Amino acid sequence: MASVPISEDSRFGLRRQARLTTPLNLSSGARLGPVDIAYETYGAMNADKSNVILICHALTGDQYVASDHPVTGKPGWWWRLVGVGKPVDPARHFIVCSNVIGSCMGSSGPASIDPATGDPHAMRFPVLTIADMVRAQAALLDHLGVERLSAVIGGSMGGMQALTWPTLFPDRVESCIVIASTARHSAQNIAFHEVGRQAIMADPHWRGGDYYADGQVPSAGLAVARMAAHITYLSEAGLTEKFGRRLQGRPENPNGAKTFGFDADFQVESYLRHQGLSFVERFDANSYLYITRAMDYYDIADDHGGSLAKAFTATKARFCLVSFDTDWLYPTAESRIIVHALNASGAQASFVELSSPFGHDAFLLECPELNRVVDGFLKGGRA
Amino acid sequence: MASVPISEDSRFGLRRQARLTTPLNLSSGARLGPVDIAYETYGAMNADKSNVILICHALTGDQYVASDHPVTGKPGWWWRLVGVGKPVDPARHFIVCSNVIGSCMGSSGPASIDPATGDPHAMRFPVLTIADMVRAQAALLDHLGVERLSAVIGGSMGGMQALTWPTLFPDRVESCIVIASTARHSAQNIAFHEVGRQAIMADPHWRGGDYYADGQVPSAGLAVARMAAHITYLSEAGLTEKFGRRLQGRPENPNGAKTFGFDADFQVESYLRHQGLSFVERFDANSYLYITRAMDYYDIADDHGGSLAKAFTATKARFCLVSFDTDWLYPTAESRIIVHALNASGAQASFVELSSPFGHDAFLLECPELNRVVDGFLKGGRA
Repeated sequence: MASVPISEDSRFGLRRQARLTTPLNLSSGARLGPVDIAYETYGAMNADKSNVILICHALTGDQYVASDHPVTGKPGWWWRLVGVGKPVDPARHFIVCSNVIGSCMGSSGPASIDPATGDPHAMRFPVLTIADMVRAQAALLDHLGVERLSAVIGGSMGGMQALTWPTLFPDRVESCIVIASTARHSAQNIAFHEVGRQAIMADPHWRGGDYYADGQVPSAGLAVARMAAHITYLSEAGLTEKFGRRLQGRPENPNGAKTFGFDADFQVESYLRHQGLSFVERFDANSYLYITRAMDYYDIADDHGGSLAKAFTATKARFCLVSFDTDWLYPTAESRIIVHALNASGAQASFVELSSPFGHDAFLLECPELNRVVDGFLKGGRA
Repeated sequence: MASVPISEDSRFGLRRQARLTTPLNLSSGARLGPVDIAYETYGAMNADKSNVILICHALTGDQYVASDHPVTGKPGWWWRLVGVGKPVDPARHFIVCSNVIGSCMGSSGPASIDPATGDPHAMRFPVLTIADMVRAQAALLDHLGVERLSAVIGGSMGGMQALTWPTLFPDRVESCIVIASTARHSAQNIAFHEVGRQAIMADPHWRGGDYYADGQVPSAGLAVARMAAHITYLSEAGLTEKFGRRLQGRPENPNGAKTFGFDADFQVESYLRHQGLSFVERFDANSYLYITRAMDYYDIADDHGGSLAKAFTATKARFCLVSFDTDWLYPTAESRIIVHALNASGAQASFVELSSPFGHDAFLLECPELNRVVDGFLKGGRA
């Protein structure tokens, strides 16, 4: 194993990549190796290695949790929660955030080169699960000499990884924070993902995933996939508040007017198109296929004989669950199912539903209550 | 004007098409003419022409409300509500159901031939509104010698037309039944439609809408549009009940197993793919663009100085509103807004929220309560 610090980040993250030479045993039975893991660290490990916090990112997230994104230049996706003086604080914690395998920001995925052939894996990359992403994170922690996590934290798909951690490595997690997430993907969740995958695969540039050689990527399909998904991240009320039926201003009509055509007359159309177009600048279509597939396969109870409670009997971890009242992607009822299972398993669990107009996206937005909950929970333990 | 009876239907409908030579004045300011209207009638007009009921169809519906569909062979889409012994009964009513303009089942739309050029209109067809669809229906009724409607009834987009009728023709409607509908399209409604339109336009077979000559139609894009829309027609709970996370059976594994691939492992994926594929057999992609656009432009209050109540001050019609508790496309709150406006305008309005697990689609499914409500309302008046 070798670790290569790539650069000091413009903020305070340390950009690194590790090549793990021991192959990973995947849920499918396949083996993946060598495995590259791109990650950022913030702060320093203390002498007894008791201050390590792992942060897990969502579907289209990445390791730049609190560093400027190298493509978009935007601040890290969870800068509100992670930073000096924030609940997760590099002055106190050694913070690790790695790009999930299957993704496209430096960790092994369909866009990365298969050393066996010298070509991108494309659709020959093995299908992954959330558990596989967690196994890769555990291998990275081995590589970093970290035995136990003071905390693992994630929202959305990051919450799925956080929740999976104590089920796979019951002795390596002291506390677990799961935000706006679920213990299994619902039929509706799968349905929306399937629409996105079909949109990508319907794009003639997709070509069975082998589109890397000529730069003609399935942008149109990926943009449609993103647009459909983006609607699920927002609440109906939030969309109404933000856009309503307001029309786009145009040079010839600054207040907007119906064009009786197919331009983006409504602001919400223009916004969605922008979401689709800007997403394809930073994300790989095959990665989108692989990660949505991993999420659809996710069902912790199914991996434990149908009992969610059984998944947690071996762990001593404390749990903190947070949901948002307008989140219809992973609604509060899903968090409640997790809490009931934790209670049944005898685990220590706290749960709060926060109020926000912003739907699922609330976990990424300004939410002082979320910071207070995370801060209080972390300070209530050893972290 | 000429009316051409095409054939007697296998059930009891009379299949007709009318060519209306007087051009329609459209909301956009454009004029459309001549206008073909394909329609079905059931029953006979009585001597004083007081038993006429107009039924308005939804986005992908058609005039075959109670007749077998000529392409799919399936029973009419509202056979549960319309038929001998049903609330809308050809033994008592003269029932008219016409294909909306902009659609593709015989009425003028983008796929029909522009007599001026001999080619399909394609995207040169004028952009329509729900009001334009209603104006075309009114012209058809003129053609049939029908002055007043005993009732106008519709669900979903059909409900939008039904609700628009008394606002445009306050003296021609005695009663109005609006089911699972709304007085305006919300930001979320527009957003989902925009995803569908972008999926169609991203299909390279679309070619700006000029795809009729070689039979290479944008099927893939239209299928994705339908899949995305279809999710909005169903409730989360309904999808869970119907499919949950159940896996597809296969010859080699009848009970289903994860393939760790991108086949339709889950039943809900297979169902959605089927919905997409079967839809493209019967529907025109450009029609889908035009009709979704009309729905997005729909906002009755906006057409009346921002006051929904004002839209109804001139009419003496009685109103019946029905919503379904699991409908998140046009939720109960939207019906309530209509009822409040009707009350404010002094109109007679009854309103009921029905319970159903099936979401928006409930208005098309077995629902004895719906039949009772419609039957009671129609019998409570002169119908």
